[in-house]
Amino acid sequence: MSDLPRSVEIREEGPREGFQIEPGPIPTDRKVALIEALAATGLRQIQVCSFVSPKLVPGWADAEQVVAKIAPPAGVAFTALWFNAAGMNRALAFRDRLKLYGSIAFAASEAFQKKNLNRDRAGQIEAQRALTRTHLEAGIPVTRIGIQAAFGCNYSGDVAPAQIVQAVGDAMAIAEECGATITEVTLADTMGWATPIRIERGIAAVRERWPDATLALHLHDTRGLGIANAMAGLRLGVARFDTTVGGLGGCPFAGQPGAPGNICTEELVLLCEEMGIATGVDLDALMEAGHLAEEIIGRRLPSELLRSGPLDAFRRRAA
Amino acid sequence: MSDLPRSVEIREEGPREGFQIEPGPIPTDRKVALIEALAATGLRQIQVCSFVSPKLVPGWADAEQVVAKIAPPAGVAFTALWFNAAGMNRALAFRDRLKLYGSIAFAASEAFQKKNLNRDRAGQIEAQRALTRTHLEAGIPVTRIGIQAAFGCNYSGDVAPAQIVQAVGDAMAIAEECGATITEVTLADTMGWATPIRIERGIAAVRERWPDATLALHLHDTRGLGIANAMAGLRLGVARFDTTVGGLGGCPFAGQPGAPGNICTEELVLLCEEMGIATGVDLDALMEAGHLAEEIIGRRLPSELLRSGPLDAFRRRAA
Repeated sequence: MSDLPRSVEIREEGPREGFQIEPGPIPTDRKVALIEALAATGLRQIQVCSFVSPKLVPGWADAEQVVAKIAPPAGVAFTALWFNAAGMNRALAFRDRLKLYGSIAFAASEAFQKKNLNRDRAGQIEAQRALTRTHLEAGIPVTRIGIQAAFGCNYSGDVAPAQIVQAVGDAMAIAEECGATITEVTLADTMGWATPIRIERGIAAVRERWPDATLALHLHDTRGLGIANAMAGLRLGVARFDTTVGGLGGCPFAGQPGAPGNICTEELVLLCEEMGIATGVDLDALMEAGHLAEEIIGRRLPSELLRSGPLDAFRRRAA
Repeated sequence: MSDLPRSVEIREEGPREGFQIEPGPIPTDRKVALIEALAATGLRQIQVCSFVSPKLVPGWADAEQVVAKIAPPAGVAFTALWFNAAGMNRALAFRDRLKLYGSIAFAASEAFQKKNLNRDRAGQIEAQRALTRTHLEAGIPVTRIGIQAAFGCNYSGDVAPAQIVQAVGDAMAIAEECGATITEVTLADTMGWATPIRIERGIAAVRERWPDATLALHLHDTRGLGIANAMAGLRLGVARFDTTVGGLGGCPFAGQPGAPGNICTEELVLLCEEMGIATGVDLDALMEAGHLAEEIIGRRLPSELLRSGPLDAFRRRAA
């Protein structure tokens, strides 16, 4: 257990993931309320919206209105997601309150990329090279590599570690060519195919090739194995995770409507804190944010912890 | 990962755990239908009922009627739970169709034992010694030791590995004194306090004292960490688990009504099979049994996998 990190960085993506997929419409003020509740929990990074086509993602048609109403408290960074230059330009209007960074994104499964973006490997290289240049020209640092479908794919089945390495390699080549300094490689289990062993093999393959890379995991709990997969990452010293409060979200591109979303922020916080890994998060405040999220979307979220509550209340009562 | 077992024995407890806690009433025939569906999945052991006071557990007032209607298919053992001589005598009437065994039960938390049984350590030793003798005199082998609240307790807080060792020691002493041959020690996370590290420390402490003991885990998913805890057990070579289809159940003694129940049989089967650990279970048939359980109790169960489905269907479609 010696590789467990002493602290972890948990990036909350509940607002962005959740409001993009909930049927809605959800009033702008309620989105703002959830973001503000999350910003008061000790979480240091919150992805607050997507700048995407309102036709494709009507839930984020009000991205501008949401961001106009929020300002990050000291020590908290608000981030946003976009996929193209149009989205980037919308984000740029809020560079006073958003921490802007660009990602180089590849899927480890070419089938997934074709299905969702209609691009083969060469097409995606071309598109990501162009977008990276656009980011850098706009003064937005390109710091992350994101690999979707890193552990399996609903369209092509199993994904081998060599496919992850190829995707990371394609992204690294673009970064080098464009002069971007990559500080993180995120492996995403977009469709819930990971197991602890697949996590270990994927991480090992990337580290063998890029021993100094800082890895992050973006895990979905599609089949109930998400927290076990996070634990596998922790055991290998991974200290950055994307999560969503209550388990908000679900992958709109996976061809599985209704499938569960990301791993729950509060369950990962509990796992870490109970093992002595610092998260900086006030779990009671986070629970309140989780219940608020349920109130806003009008249904129960998958989180078990929201049903049962953390352990410290029992410890206090027992003492 | 070298200690992962090659195969595991997954004992289904959904009927017993689920029907004891669901508000009901659930018709006897529906209980029988679930048991029969589970018996056709490849699961080799199914706990079908509790012989307990119908006043305390009205959901099992029809235990006799259920057992009278079922017969285990070849290769499947039906088991039952009871806590005293009265329950044992009810079970004895069905020794033609139930695999009867006695357990020596202790809680690692004395507070839990006092709260639920009104017995201190000495009182529980006395009661378990008497029950063990009663079992043996009735010709029922006493083969298991079960330790409740092994990883923490809603009433007393954290539980140290030394408390597990003390509880197992008390049970072992009774077994020796009465001439019972113990074949398994089950550690139960009755109230969802376990983490992977607590699982490791608890198992290590028991194995240090009883190196040859065969361990089993009975895990609840109260706080979403259940499958990560199961993985911790697998990593240490634990190959016996109690689970419930869909996550049926919840602990009626934990003072937390509505808290989630056991880890889901189908999610543990998926975890194992996807890592190459044989379970003998047909996951598609088990999914059908899970959906039947939801139909019978009239609500969604906590299982994520019941929402999303196993991976093989995607593999077949991709091929």
